[in-house]
Amino acid sequence: MSDVKEVLGSYSTDITKTIEEELSIITPDNLGEASVYLTRAGGKMLRPALTLIVSEAVGGSRESALKAAAAIELIHTFSLIHDDIMDDDDMRRGMPSVHKVWGQDVAILAGDTLFSKAFEIITGSQGTTSDQNNQTLATVADACVKICEGQALDMSFEERFDVSEDEYMEMIFKKTGALIAAATKAGAVMGGASQEVIDAMYEYGRLIGLAFQIQDDYLDLAADEETLGKPIGSDIGKGKMTIIAINGLASAGDDSEKLLEILKEEETPQEDIDLAIEILTKCGSIEYARNLALKSVDEAKEVLEILPDSSFKQTLSNIADFVLERSA
Amino acid sequence: MSDVKEVLGSYSTDITKTIEEELSIITPDNLGEASVYLTRAGGKMLRPALTLIVSEAVGGSRESALKAAAAIELIHTFSLIHDDIMDDDDMRRGMPSVHKVWGQDVAILAGDTLFSKAFEIITGSQGTTSDQNNQTLATVADACVKICEGQALDMSFEERFDVSEDEYMEMIFKKTGALIAAATKAGAVMGGASQEVIDAMYEYGRLIGLAFQIQDDYLDLAADEETLGKPIGSDIGKGKMTIIAINGLASAGDDSEKLLEILKEEETPQEDIDLAIEILTKCGSIEYARNLALKSVDEAKEVLEILPDSSFKQTLSNIADFVLERSA
Repeated sequence: MSDVKEVLGSYSTDITKTIEEELSIITPDNLGEASVYLTRAGGKMLRPALTLIVSEAVGGSRESALKAAAAIELIHTFSLIHDDIMDDDDMRRGMPSVHKVWGQDVAILAGDTLFSKAFEIITGSQGTTSDQNNQTLATVADACVKICEGQALDMSFEERFDVSEDEYMEMIFKKTGALIAAATKAGAVMGGASQEVIDAMYEYGRLIGLAFQIQDDYLDLAADEETLGKPIGSDIGKGKMTIIAINGLASAGDDSEKLLEILKEEETPQEDIDLAIEILTKCGSIEYARNLALKSVDEAKEVLEILPDSSFKQTLSNIADFVLERSA
Repeated sequence: MSDVKEVLGSYSTDITKTIEEELSIITPDNLGEASVYLTRAGGKMLRPALTLIVSEAVGGSRESALKAAAAIELIHTFSLIHDDIMDDDDMRRGMPSVHKVWGQDVAILAGDTLFSKAFEIITGSQGTTSDQNNQTLATVADACVKICEGQALDMSFEERFDVSEDEYMEMIFKKTGALIAAATKAGAVMGGASQEVIDAMYEYGRLIGLAFQIQDDYLDLAADEETLGKPIGSDIGKGKMTIIAINGLASAGDDSEKLLEILKEEETPQEDIDLAIEILTKCGSIEYARNLALKSVDEAKEVLEILPDSSFKQTLSNIADFVLERSA
C-alpha cells in the first residue's frame, strides 16, 4: 500500500505544476486564488495519476497525457467545490471549504472556472492528434454529465428508503465511477491505444471506481474509529442508503422493520446504531458489501490482462488492491 | 429591425429542436426539467443564430454548425442560471428563475449539466473534422473562462467607484462579448473558413458584443420607461459603474463630486437621479456612450467586408445595426 502512495506521489509533482501554470493567469486575484486553493491543499491525485500510468502502460508517453490528467483533476476539484456548497460542508482536505473562505458566489464561479479550464487545457494537449483530443474531450464531458446526474440522484435518495441496489449502483457509478473511468480511458486515448484497449481501460476504471465507493460504505461500519476520523456507523445515524443498508432492508427478514425504523430516526441513539450493525452483521450485508468490492477489484485486475506486462501494468494492479486496503 | 427578429426566429426552431433532443436523456427527471426549463421559456437565441448565419456566410452549411450553435446557447443558459443564483434574481424570461423553482442545489447542478452537455455536443458535430471540433471546443472553453472572470470582475466593481474605462471594457468583453465572439468564431470554424476569416468573425462578434453591452447602459438613461420595463436611471440608483458613470466621473469637472456622492447613496431619491442625469447630459457622457456603441457597430460592419456578398453577409450587417436599434 505504501508503494502505491509513493507511486502516486511521484506523479503528483508534474500534475500540480501543470495545474499551477494553467491557473496562474486567472483574474481577478480572488477568483484565481479560490480556483487553485484546493489543489494546493493537497490530495491523493489518484485520478490524474491513473491517466498518466495508463498512458504509459499502453506504450504512450507521460507528456502526451499530462494535460488530460490535469484536466481530470480540475474536474474532480470543481465537483468537490460545488458539492461542498450543496452539502454545506465546512471543511475539505483539512481546510475550510472554498465557500467558507470566499463566500458562495466566488465558490460557484471558481468551480465554473476550473470546469472551463479543464476543457481548454485538453484542447492544448501536446504530442496528440485532434482525433485524440476530441475523443478525450467527449469522454470527459460525458463523465461531467454523469457526475451531475449522480449528484442529483444522490440528493433524491435523501428522502427515500426504497432505493434498489440497481439504483444505488447507477448512482455511485455516475457520481464516482464515471470520472475514474474517464481518467483511465483518457490515458489510453492519449497514449495511442487501440479502441479495444481504450474500452478495456474504461472498464478497469469503472470497476475500481465502484469498489472505491462500496469500500467507503464498508469502512463506515468496519473501520477503526480513530483511523476513519469519524464515529463508526455515522451513515446509519444519517439514514443514508448505502449498499449495506439497501441489502439489509432486503434480506434481514423479520429484522428489516426494525432496521428501517432506525434508519428513519431523526436523532439516532448509539444503542440503535449498535443494534443496526448487529442486524446488518447477522444478515450478512456487511460481508455482502465487502465481497462486492472484492469482486469488482478482481474483475478490474482481469481486465488488465489485455495490456503487455510492464511495471505500469503492475502498478495498475496494485492500485486496484489499494482501493480495498485503505482503511479510511 | 423586425426583419432581424424574423431571421432569428427562422433559426430558432432548429436550435431548440437540437437542444431538446440533447437534453431529453438527462436523469433524474427534476434535473432534466430544470436543465431544459429556460430554453423552453424562450429567448432571442441571438448567439446560436449568429453561429449558423456565419457558417452559411463563409460558405459552410447550417447543419455542420448546428451542434456548436446549440452548445453556445447552452453555455449562455448555464451562465444565466448561475448568475441568477449569485444575484438572487427571482425572475428570468418572464418566469421564476431556476433556483426559485427547484431550489439552489438543483439550480447549481442544472447549470453544471448544461455546461457539460455543451462540450459533449460539440464533440458530436456532424460533417466536421476533429480539427474543427477541437478549435471550436478551445474557443468555447476560452469564452467560458472569460465569462467567469467577467462575472468576478463585475462583482468586484460593486464595492468600487474608481473603476477605469479600461477595466470596464475588459469586464464587458469578458462577461458578454467573449461568448458572442465565440459564437461567431465557431460558425466560421465549423463552416470551414480560412484562419484569416475565422479571426475576422471573432472580431465582428467582439465588437457587436461591446456595442450590445454599452447600449444597455445607454438605454438605462435614454430609453422610454414603458418600453424599458424599469425606471429610467435605475443604474444610477444602484450606484452601478456603467460606461456613462465612469466617463461622467472623469469629465464632469466641478460636478464630479456631486455625481460621486449620488452614486454612493444607499437610497437615491428621484431628484438626485434627475440631477445625475442632468450632469451626465451636460458633460456629454450619455452621448459619449452612444458614440462608442455606434463606433463599435461601424467597425463590426467594416470587418464583414472580408466576406463575399450574400444574403447572410447582409443579415450579419443588419444584426450589427439591430444591436443599437433595440429599445429595451
